Amino acid sequence: KIAVDEPMKLDELTLAERDLKTKMAQGVTDMSPMRLRMEKFIREQQKDIVQALEAIDGSGFRIDEWQRKEGGGGTTCVLQDGNVFEKAGVGISLVYGTLPKAAILKMRANHKNIVEGEAIPESLEFFAAGLSLICHPKNPMAPTVHLNYRYFETANPDGSSGAWWFGGGSDLTPNYLFDDDAILFHKSLKDACDAHNKDYFPKFKKWCDEYFVNKHRNESRGIGGIFFDDLDEATQDKESIFAFIQDSLKTFVPTYSTIMNRRKDMPFTEKEKEWQQIRRGKYVEFNLVHDRGTAFGLNTPGARVESILMSMPLTASWRYMYEPEPGSREERLVDVLREPKEWV
Amino acid sequence: KIAVDEPMKLDELTLAERDLKTKMAQGVTDMSPMRLRMEKFIREQQKDIVQALEAIDGSGFRIDEWQRKEGGGGTTCVLQDGNVFEKAGVGISLVYGTLPKAAILKMRANHKNIVEGEAIPESLEFFAAGLSLICHPKNPMAPTVHLNYRYFETANPDGSSGAWWFGGGSDLTPNYLFDDDAILFHKSLKDACDAHNKDYFPKFKKWCDEYFVNKHRNESRGIGGIFFDDLDEATQDKESIFAFIQDSLKTFVPTYSTIMNRRKDMPFTEKEKEWQQIRRGKYVEFNLVHDRGTAFGLNTPGARVESILMSMPLTASWRYMYEPEPGSREERLVDVLREPKEWV
Repeated sequence: KIAVDEPMKLDELTLAERDLKTKMAQGVTDMSPMRLRMEKFIREQQKDIVQALEAIDGSGFRIDEWQRKEGGGGTTCVLQDGNVFEKAGVGISLVYGTLPKAAILKMRANHKNIVEGEAIPESLEFFAAGLSLICHPKNPMAPTVHLNYRYFETANPDGSSGAWWFGGGSDLTPNYLFDDDAILFHKSLKDACDAHNKDYFPKFKKWCDEYFVNKHRNESRGIGGIFFDDLDEATQDKESIFAFIQDSLKTFVPTYSTIMNRRKDMPFTEKEKEWQQIRRGKYVEFNLVHDRGTAFGLNTPGARVESILMSMPLTASWRYMYEPEPGSREERLVDVLREPKEWV
Repeated sequence: KIAVDEPMKLDELTLAERDLKTKMAQGVTDMSPMRLRMEKFIREQQKDIVQALEAIDGSGFRIDEWQRKEGGGGTTCVLQDGNVFEKAGVGISLVYGTLPKAAILKMRANHKNIVEGEAIPESLEFFAAGLSLICHPKNPMAPTVHLNYRYFETANPDGSSGAWWFGGGSDLTPNYLFDDDAILFHKSLKDACDAHNKDYFPKFKKWCDEYFVNKHRNESRGIGGIFFDDLDEATQDKESIFAFIQDSLKTFVPTYSTIMNRRKDMPFTEKEKEWQQIRRGKYVEFNLVHDRGTAFGLNTPGARVESILMSMPLTASWRYMYEPEPGSREERLVDVLREPKEWV
């Protein structure tokens, strides 16, 4: 009787509880479930990125660990009003939860294997892990950067992995265009893509150009980079995609450090600072009006609003009918935002 | 043959063309269509309000007339970086257009008389007129104010008026709470309401408290006022509602002038200015994330984005985890934003 009860009891553990048990008993290796490997990877990356940004800024991040009542939690690191950065945020979140039937039906459109056979269960457990980063430098010559990498997985009713996919990308938002920076940023992402799949960069570059657009202004948020979602077995096997995700994310520190070292101490005028503030306003517009991730976060009950909105700049400005002067550097930026360029 | 052709040609005039003809031939009187009376009223009000705000500020508004390619246009008046106001915008818009079938079906839920009988026409001409106002003062002791009054009407296929309704309201957003201001603001709106219908104020005050909420923060945008929509013959006859709209809008100048004269020259600290900037950030969040009017405007093809976003403050700030000190005046404001008060 006991032999029958034991596995029954084991089955009653949630996905989060089972993962915790596995982690404590065996640690995390290449043989562990992807949930644990992705968690380990983004935790390490968060540490490395925070360290690299602290080295650039010369001041430290504030670190907040938080729990989600409904399951999971995260670590939000923010450096505010530093020497180099007006605001920099590096956050990870690890969410264990339950998808209701309506959400399962919706996801099935893109991910057929979320359910086995025809019967749709009333609910499914899921896991979502992500690392998000945003840096708003003080110097208007230095670009804002954004990055997000995430993994999503559902559990079958028997506890095995169901559907899974990766998403992510990184994009650069300068106030002033330095071709060297744009080329370096795009080239390092292209190299990471090409090492895994020659189709990735052209596809993900286009996806980025199409996603980060202030449609109401017919103007891109910045000069792009890469963006992708729903990478699953229809694209490549899980192991290959995870390898790509890792290489792609790891381009961030060397690339952005190089760009920041070039720009952070450049001289600038009051007028150039004002232009930065205007561009910041448009950044806010994209994040609050168009970004699906932000909207999803703000609509999630129990979400940690301060972690979602760490992406907001410390300062922004809206000036009525502000137009760059013809032939100016400001106008050159806007021209490129109206018609994205191929940088590599 | 000519006698038959002539009226045919007349019928082909659009609503906008017919209104223009009427205006030129007869001027606008109490017997004119409501479209023309509302236009005349908001044009006069725009002039009066601009004059009153210029008197407070001591500097002038910039005036932009604009046309909408699809029909109609407007006048946007903005005072930016003045002596008293960081930004003040007073705009009117007069839109003539065509509703597609999908929009007609949607509107029929609230306005049955948009169609006569059962057959839904493929399209209907409509008219929309509105006055919008927002003032962001420089002094953190002086409150931001917002106001909007609008009229909407559809035309039957034979050119006669179909469905119609009024909407509007006004609300106050202080950074620091002065009970005197809150009471004056609410009382003047209550008096205007009570003179027309004793049910209005309690109903519209509640509507306002429920509408202007940053749901993601569980916090009201400001201390409210009144808000209403879809006032049609089910509420009262058109003449009575128009009279209420006029009286209600006319409370603005004396009330806000009194409040501004009390606050515009008060001393303040750097810390208090910072708090204002934080509150401005939350104002932006409401307008871009939750406000239906802004979303509708930004999604309208050919909309004048600069007129819609004149509501944005000149400056705003997002500070991670900014919390008012226990027992402070800042905390007292947030307490009221979490639980709206009855001020009169």
